[in-house]
Amino acid sequence: MVSRGSTAVQDVVIRTHEKVELRNPILVEGLPGVGNVGKLAADYLRDQLPTKPLATIHSKFFPPQVYVGEDGVIRLVSNELTYWRAPAAAQRDLLVLGGDYQGISPEGQYELTEAVLRFCHELGTKEVYTLAGFAQGHVVERPKVLGAATSPARVEAMKRFGVLFSRNDPGGGLIGASGLFLGLGRLYDMEGVCLMGETSGYFVDPRSAEAVLKVLTNALHIEIDFADLEAKAKEIDRIAQRIHDSEPKAAEGPAPPREDLGYIG
Amino acid sequence: MVSRGSTAVQDVVIRTHEKVELRNPILVEGLPGVGNVGKLAADYLRDQLPTKPLATIHSKFFPPQVYVGEDGVIRLVSNELTYWRAPAAAQRDLLVLGGDYQGISPEGQYELTEAVLRFCHELGTKEVYTLAGFAQGHVVERPKVLGAATSPARVEAMKRFGVLFSRNDPGGGLIGASGLFLGLGRLYDMEGVCLMGETSGYFVDPRSAEAVLKVLTNALHIEIDFADLEAKAKEIDRIAQRIHDSEPKAAEGPAPPREDLGYIG
Amino acid sequence: MVSRGSTAVQDVVIRTHEKVELRNPILVEGLPGVGNVGKLAADYLRDQLPTKPLATIHSKFFPPQVYVGEDGVIRLVSNELTYWRAPAAAQRDLLVLGGDYQGISPEGQYELTEAVLRFCHELGTKEVYTLAGFAQGHVVERPKVLGAATSPARVEAMKRFGVLFSRNDPGGGLIGASGLFLGLGRLYDMEGVCLMGETSGYFVDPRSAEAVLKVLTNALHIEIDFADLEAKAKEIDRIAQRIHDSEPKAAEGPAPPREDLGYIG
Amino acid sequence: MVSRGSTAVQDVVIRTHEKVELRNPILVEGLPGVGNVGKLAADYLRDQLPTKPLATIHSKFFPPQVYVGEDGVIRLVSNELTYWRAPAAAQRDLLVLGGDYQGISPEGQYELTEAVLRFCHELGTKEVYTLAGFAQGHVVERPKVLGAATSPARVEAMKRFGVLFSRNDPGGGLIGASGLFLGLGRLYDMEGVCLMGETSGYFVDPRSAEAVLKVLTNALHIEIDFADLEAKAKEIDRIAQRIHDSEPKAAEGPAPPREDLGYIG
Repeated sequence: MVSRGSTAVQDVVIRTHEKVELRNPILVEGLPGVGNVGKLAADYLRDQLPTKPLATIHSKFFPPQVYVGEDGVIRLVSNELTYWRAPAAAQRDLLVLGGDYQGISPEGQYELTEAVLRFCHELGTKEVYTLAGFAQGHVVERPKVLGAATSPARVEAMKRFGVLFSRNDPGGGLIGASGLFLGLGRLYDMEGVCLMGETSGYFVDPRSAEAVLKVLTNALHIEIDFADLEAKAKEIDRIAQRIHDSEPKAAEGPAPPREDLGYIG
Repeated sequence: MVSRGSTAVQDVVIRTHEKVELRNPILVEGLPGVGNVGKLAADYLRDQLPTKPLATIHSKFFPPQVYVGEDGVIRLVSNELTYWRAPAAAQRDLLVLGGDYQGISPEGQYELTEAVLRFCHELGTKEVYTLAGFAQGHVVERPKVLGAATSPARVEAMKRFGVLFSRNDPGGGLIGASGLFLGLGRLYDMEGVCLMGETSGYFVDPRSAEAVLKVLTNALHIEIDFADLEAKAKEIDRIAQRIHDSEPKAAEGPAPPREDLGYIG
Repeated sequence: MVSRGSTAVQDVVIRTHEKVELRNPILVEGLPGVGNVGKLAADYLRDQLPTKPLATIHSKFFPPQVYVGEDGVIRLVSNELTYWRAPAAAQRDLLVLGGDYQGISPEGQYELTEAVLRFCHELGTKEVYTLAGFAQGHVVERPKVLGAATSPARVEAMKRFGVLFSRNDPGGGLIGASGLFLGLGRLYDMEGVCLMGETSGYFVDPRSAEAVLKVLTNALHIEIDFADLEAKAKEIDRIAQRIHDSEPKAAEGPAPPREDLGYIG
Repeated sequence: MVSRGSTAVQDVVIRTHEKVELRNPILVEGLPGVGNVGKLAADYLRDQLPTKPLATIHSKFFPPQVYVGEDGVIRLVSNELTYWRAPAAAQRDLLVLGGDYQGISPEGQYELTEAVLRFCHELGTKEVYTLAGFAQGHVVERPKVLGAATSPARVEAMKRFGVLFSRNDPGGGLIGASGLFLGLGRLYDMEGVCLMGETSGYFVDPRSAEAVLKVLTNALHIEIDFADLEAKAKEIDRIAQRIHDSEPKAAEGPAPPREDLGYIG
């Protein structure tokens, strides 16, 4: 009888599709979260810019799950890094991180964030923008963008783009990838900013994602077309209106959170 | 005083019983899950073919449990790999994976699946069939077989055996070993198919397992006798009928899920 | 700024107090569990024989807890191995494992059990007895001893000491250390027996521990005095009687499990 | 296609800000816990003494969280080690450990405690004081200080400073960092004492922290000013009084625990 043991499985696997050299790239992170604001924004940026796939990230810190496409073909849940080469001198190369999930345990959050940061650090990244939603618990007609940053200089810089730095929000700090990319990024000497779009927290919120993206593209000297995102926002408005209309009118006061609606986008 | 430390325990231990060389073997996976369809099918295939034990898999990602046989002898919970040498040129050697449990944590699912895939990869495996149940939430008289695959070519190939590739099912993708063996299998350059037998989800379902196995054996050019599985299906039918008869007749609408019945087989 | 990282902490630390050579020792395991039967039995055996401390086991798989003695001195939770040198030729050297906790996670159970087995294997251990309780859900006046073993020969051998091997019990197998020491012990070529004393499951049960110990000492050709254990059993009887008397008499049918009484010993 | 794997992430990262040599330093630990007594005490000691930052501890065993300061600047959750050089011969150098969290899992508690102990051991630490609260479940006007220690000699020594060593308290031992630093400290040949200030368990309790600190500073021959802590205690008194006044008077018997008030400080 022969006894064989497996060697340790890699906890985070980063498969690169192409070997690239980038000039001082900026990392933009947008993963699922409150109102899916960060993910909507990062995915939209990726789709509007002529980005190319750079790396696929698999991990035992994601759920053991595959998605099945309409054609019946499976895809293992992942995060994806794409890159964009800046065509103009005033612009900077970008790395955009999106994906299906954040790590599903606290340890997984740390391990995934650190693995991606190390990868981007080796590509020369010294700057991070993280995109997220900020749940207000009520419908927000014109979402503002709240901020947090790694230094007072960054705070001042972002104020010039209309970002609000509130004394009290977010009170408990930031939990999850958007905070961790900044916090652990400091250990890799990265500076960074978190842009949080106000959102109700009940729906996926393309309007909030648009607000966040407008700040980001201004700061990065990038121009993109917002028409598709605007259309998506109107579609969500219609769904929300229909749900609102179908509810009994007598209800007074703020509506209770409707978490059962989940993420639509 | 002497201080001693243990070295790291192997997380997944694969004990091989025999050293074999196989010709281009196909891995067939069937572990406990919805309606126990996958496990019933894989165990039945193993019993009908003259398979031989190849390896026993123990892991800290299984429960800390032993079973006690009728003779009082214990057996540590495990997964088992058996192999079958194809007698005919039109057939392919098989590796059949069955067992008591899937990994009981998300991380454990990944680690176990990867360890088995690596083992089978070293034996030359480039193709995987995973067997599972698809819970419909109501009794299914004639279970159909739904599919998912790693490539459009595989999807087309399986349609010829009557497998349905539904645009909407499974909506949330596949969670657990049957999906993960395909998703992680891609990292080992394996192609694969998941065959899902429709089932209510309330009972173990040999009839659904039979439907799945018929597709599989057709695709693999294997002939087995289904009499024992058919007998098992009829036994479950009788139990289900008895439960149905003993219920108050007044209940209208679909019956609630009866998870308390659990797995019988 | 200097960055320092910790190396991996040992998951299980076994500190030996003395370097010993034993002749073909038998491991006896008794850790907390149902009715605390195993722990009561192993602790009693350790106290009645002139055993000596051999090793203390600490682990991150135990709770992060210290006990405080009556003298105000703390003690980190642990498992303890003691040894006994057999004075007569007909007897065998013993290793007795007791302690405060089993591992508090499934992975921890595996890691702890394997670390102790490896340690005992290096000391020449080829045989294991595990002691446990078997919850019957009702008061048991004269507890019988149920068994499970690693081979038919062991089953037959234990029947001669009055151990019952029931066709149906334990139905779901054994969960926890007592099963795992046998199951993983097979990977170290150890043979073994689990002795389970019937118990209600509501109280700590010295009477059940006594029944288990009587079988064990018979099998090992050891004589110990049971007077102290008998006294402890009578004390528990008195407590149980007092609780029984204070309950309303009208209650019909079997009493519900009283898990809130927890372990007294 | 290139496949890249991350190497193992360090589970506990200790970043030192300065390389120091200390003379036989004593470690004082005070992390969040019951009534936040330990953290209040350690933070106050750190602020009153002219301590300097020595090391910042990050870990995947903390929550994946950053705090946002009033200036909008983020800070990754951490523990902090500061040091104090004793100016007088009768005094000893100190290492003070404070921070945002204890490890959030049992394994994390062990890993973090061991990493800090090893770090302090390398700096020559042979003695530990841990500071904590002891929940009495009712308001305590004049909190006493209970103790636990690593040896009878330490117990006797602390009695001279008014520390109570109760035969029955704490009954279940100490759970968490304050106990673990003593228990694991023994593996590094460290002696130590845990000082527990009585507290209701409903509020943060600066008065209890003051009682603990008075014992500690007496034992360490240190003098600090307690005015700020006294002011904080009075502020909590006022809040508690206001809550008490706003409650219906009819309530008899002891009030139920008010965990919803949480930690204010």
